[in-house]
Parts: sequence; structure tokens; C-alpha cells
Amino acid sequence: MKRNPRRAVMSLAAIVFGLAATLTHAQDQLPSWNDGPAKQAILEFVKATTQGGSQFVPPEARIATFDQDGTLWVEHPMYTQVMYCLERVPDLVKARPELKDKPPFNTVLELLHGDRAAMEKLNMKDLELIAAATLTGMPVDQFNGEVKKWISAAKDARWKRPYTQLTYQPMQELLRYLRANGYKTYIVTGGGQDFVRVYAEQTYGIPPEQVVGTAGGTKYGYGKGGKPFLTKDPQMLLNDNNAGKPEGIHLMIGQRPVAAFGNSTGDQQMLEYTKAGEGTRLAMIVLHDDAEREYAYGPAERLPVTKVGTFTQALFDEAKKNGWTIVSMKDDWKRIFPFENQ
Amino acid sequence: MKRNPRRAVMSLAAIVFGLAATLTHAQDQLPSWNDGPAKQAILEFVKATTQGGSQFVPPEARIATFDQDGTLWVEHPMYTQVMYCLERVPDLVKARPELKDKPPFNTVLELLHGDRAAMEKLNMKDLELIAAATLTGMPVDQFNGEVKKWISAAKDARWKRPYTQLTYQPMQELLRYLRANGYKTYIVTGGGQDFVRVYAEQTYGIPPEQVVGTAGGTKYGYGKGGKPFLTKDPQMLLNDNNAGKPEGIHLMIGQRPVAAFGNSTGDQQMLEYTKAGEGTRLAMIVLHDDAEREYAYGPAERLPVTKVGTFTQALFDEAKKNGWTIVSMKDDWKRIFPFENQ
Repeated sequence: MKRNPRRAVMSLAAIVFGLAATLTHAQDQLPSWNDGPAKQAILEFVKATTQGGSQFVPPEARIATFDQDGTLWVEHPMYTQVMYCLERVPDLVKARPELKDKPPFNTVLELLHGDRAAMEKLNMKDLELIAAATLTGMPVDQFNGEVKKWISAAKDARWKRPYTQLTYQPMQELLRYLRANGYKTYIVTGGGQDFVRVYAEQTYGIPPEQVVGTAGGTKYGYGKGGKPFLTKDPQMLLNDNNAGKPEGIHLMIGQRPVAAFGNSTGDQQMLEYTKAGEGTRLAMIVLHDDAEREYAYGPAERLPVTKVGTFTQALFDEAKKNGWTIVSMKDDWKRIFPFENQ
Repeated sequence: MKRNPRRAVMSLAAIVFGLAATLTHAQDQLPSWNDGPAKQAILEFVKATTQGGSQFVPPEARIATFDQDGTLWVEHPMYTQVMYCLERVPDLVKARPELKDKPPFNTVLELLHGDRAAMEKLNMKDLELIAAATLTGMPVDQFNGEVKKWISAAKDARWKRPYTQLTYQPMQELLRYLRANGYKTYIVTGGGQDFVRVYAEQTYGIPPEQVVGTAGGTKYGYGKGGKPFLTKDPQMLLNDNNAGKPEGIHLMIGQRPVAAFGNSTGDQQMLEYTKAGEGTRLAMIVLHDDAEREYAYGPAERLPVTKVGTFTQALFDEAKKNGWTIVSMKDDWKRIFPFENQ
């Protein structure tokens, strides 16, 4: 028999990796999760779907989708992307002076230098106008550069830290744990796909192609010397909220997730769609019930209702009825942020 | 110093994999390519972008995009998906008898049992009607099942083999070679995204989420017992041809490819866009100039022009001007199909 040196090497590698997997498994990969039903559900789900048996899911079908705002990082009191749009207004009116005295841009300019909290009062139509003007109409590369610059400098008002530091440590551990078990992790956000793609790799280890979000079209054209480039178009292609989440998942991923994670009514259909697949599925919903360490808002009976991340009583009831796992930030999370002392 | 057993294991694994890579590199991974400028361009590109040096591309940016029809498999005399739509018509009129006597469905029924070659004469409007009726209006899962069944049974008229066997062996080797060097390989096709996703994994090793194509929307709804499902909608979201290819790449991948492969005017903008990025880029275009082993069609000066895979003289001139590598099937490919004797 002829010896195949490549096969011999691969077998050795398999042994080495098997050993590495065993060593890693022995450690607790979710140290920021308290022991309890939520952590247990995660461990059982991963065991059932990756270690053989009737519920085994082949690696190519291991898709896990995560909402971003309120699920992976803080969304309160205002979505980070809305802050971006508002804080872009001064540069916008510099480039387009005709907007300076026009509502809602004049109002935003005033509030940025005064009562910032009053910006919550801007209505949906105002926000849409501001979003269109700050998120579209420029080359893709220019937009990416502007977001990159802003996100590295802007700070949250409460923690005085960059927004990208306000991710939830338990969810970061969960992302890594799923990836270590062969899951492809996706962000499926109601936020702007192009916006989130700028920082998702560095912030969550999720590459641009695994970020699904609300997306507009682009227009291909030629610049100086015939160099081709894409311009961001205001036309909306995908409103990645509510029913738009499973629709966006089909468009961008083409497979039904095996696990999904959300925190609001905008995630309901993604969680339903995931849970309705065959075999073991994991649907989890984060309940913001920790006013001290983060914020408390949610089902009206128990917590204050806010404008962002609507977690209604109906959603809470559906979660219980459909066997979604409810994650209590207060009870299930030992530590909220990566920067906290361990 | 404390010993870290996990790091020790990983270092050992790194050595083992380094050894495997060296052994593999010593073999020719592109055995179906003749030595020549095309093969040389591929080898130099991969070396420059993956082995350090000024042109090194980090693994997360290694994106390679491939057109399908005429680039990865046979497109002549009719796109496989068009054959699918036509051959679905008998089942369609069974389900919707009111279409039986209506043009163009009555014409298709006639031609399927007679002069199949005459189907080339159907005009674009006829084909659009047939496509809408056979590709949309049904649940996603039903569509996937229908395509799966058809693709496993249907045969090409010339080779009497399933279409999925009519892939080009040199391109299969190229896909594997790029993946072995850390590239994510994507299909970016003018064909239907949902259609190609059904067989891409088995045929090319490309998972559904790495297939970008012409895509319609879906509608989320509830079936029996409240089970959610998606229905294919006729509304077009992305026409993934010409300028639609870079636009689709931005939407679905969010990064500019480092390498792109095509064979027709529909790929021109994807190739331009890829080549316009910074650093070393590879843009290749397959020329069908082998009437004996496959087909010959292309730039009018040299080859017959056909309705599919238009390779105009203008495209040929642009390829030469912009430094795209032209792959001659006749000269560069030792073997065309996987089923040929080696």
C-alpha cells in the first residue's frame, strides 16, 4: 500500500483539533451568564445541534441571526444611527447651505447646541428627511469614511464611552461560542445595512457580508478617469423590520436560521420564522429589566414603555406561548459590559 | 511562567497545517489548465495576495466573484433556467388550466412536443410572462422542491447529461484553489438567485448565502396552524446584470471583490469595478472558442455571435485595454468537463 503523506498529516491535524476542542469545552465559554434557564437553553441547543444525534445540524446549515439594537448593544434612549444622522447635520448644512434655515434641519442645529434631549420630540417625517439627507446621495466610500470617523469619536451621554464599547459582554461570548461550534453568526438589524457594516467586524467579529439590514439601492457610475464607483440611492430595497426580517434573511442568506436573538416587536417574525423550522431551534428574547446597570423598559404591565425597542405585553405572551427563551438582563447576566470589572 | 495548554496545542496545529500547506502547494492544484498566461496570472495573483508582501490581502477581504452561465458551466444554446421555465409549463397549465390555450403558454406546450429548437424564437416578453408564472407566486419551499426535482432529472440535449455535470473542470479547480487560499467564492449571476441556490452547494461547493443573483421579493405570511412561510413575489428587487452586478455585490457582500470572472457584456461592470480597486486585482474573461469540445461564439470579428453570453468586439477591446486576462477555452484548458477522460 502506498502511503499518502497528505492524509497522514490531515489525520494528525484532526487529532490535534479534537484535543483542542476537548480542552476548550472543559472551560466555561459563557462566563458572564449566570447559571439558569437561559444559559441552560443555549448549552443544550448547541449540544443537540452539533454533537450528533437526531437533532444534529450539518455545519453548512448552522445559521444564527442577531438583532443589533437592544440585543447586542444599548439602544436607549436613542438608536446610535439616529444620533449619527443628527450629528451629521452641521456638516450637511456646510455642504448644502440652502438647508440651514429649513425645518427640520434648523431645529436640529439648535438642539445640538442646547437641549439635546428635546430631539426625542422630532417626528418620524422629520427623521426620514434627515436620514435621507445624511445616509444617501454620496459615494459608498465617502459614506463609509464618514461613519468610520464618527463612530470612533462619538460618545454615549451616560457612560461617556464610544458606542462600540456598549456591547453586551454575555452576547459577545454567545457570538464566539456559536462560532466556535460551527455557526455562522449574522446581524439582522432594522438599522442601516451599510452603517452597521462599517464597524461590525471590529465590534462583533462579523464581516460585512454577514450584516443584513435596512438597505437602499446604489447606482453604478464613472468618476474621474473613468474610475467606476457606487452612489447611495434613496430608493429603499429592504425595510428590515418585522416581516422584513425573514424576507431579508431569505434575500441575503437564503436559509432559515436555526437560532435567532432579538428584543422587540421588530424581531417577532424573525423569531417565529426561526422557531417554525424543523428540529431543535433556539429563539431568545432579551428583556431590559435592569434599570441600575442598563435600562428597564418592556411589557407595559411590568416595565415602563419607551419609543425604542418596543417589547409589548403581546410579544411577552407570544414568547411564553411559543417557547422562546426570555433572557432577563437582571437575573441572567453576571456582567453587562466588557469594560466592567470582572 | 504559567504554561497555557490551549496555546501550546494551537501552535502544534499551526505547525501541522503549515506542513500540510507546503505539501499541497507542491502539487499542481490546477491540473486542467495548460501552462500559459492565464494559469500564470492566477498563480501570480494568489501568491501576491496571500503570501505577504506589499500586495497582501487580509483573509476577511479575500472575495472572489464568478458569473455562472458561460463562466462556470455551459450556457449554450439556452440558459438552463430558461429550459426550466419552459419545461415547467405542462405542470403549470395542469394547476392553472385557464393558461392552456393562451399565448405564449400554448406555443410552449406545442414546441415541447415538437420542434424544441424553435423555442429560441420566443421573444423577451413571452419569456418574461413564462418566467413570472413559473418562478413566482408559490411558497419558497415549494419552489425549491420543484427546482431540486427538475435539476436532478433534466438533461442537456447534446451531452445527454444532467446540467450540473456540465461545469468546467478548470473552473472547479480554480474555485477550490482560491478557497484553499482563504478566498470566499461567490456566484454573481444574472440568473435567478433562488434557482441557483438550490444546486450551488452540491455543484460548486458554494453555499446559498454566497449566491448573488437576480432576485425578487418575498412576502411573509401564515399557513395552517399559524405556521409562517414566505411566498415568492413577482416584484423585482435586483436585476443582477450589467451595472446590477456591482450594485448586487454591494448589497449582498458589501465589499469590493479582489478577483472576478465572467464571459459576457453582462459581466463588464463587475470586472471593471473589481479591477478599479487598489492593489493587485484579477479580472478574467472566458472566451468560448472551442467549437469541437464545447461551443465557439464571441467577438464578431472572430467567432459567430449568439443570443446568449454576448461577448462583443467592444468587450474584447476593453478586456485588452484594462488588463483583464482572456481565457481561451481552446488553448488554456486541457480538459473541459469533469466527466472527460483525463
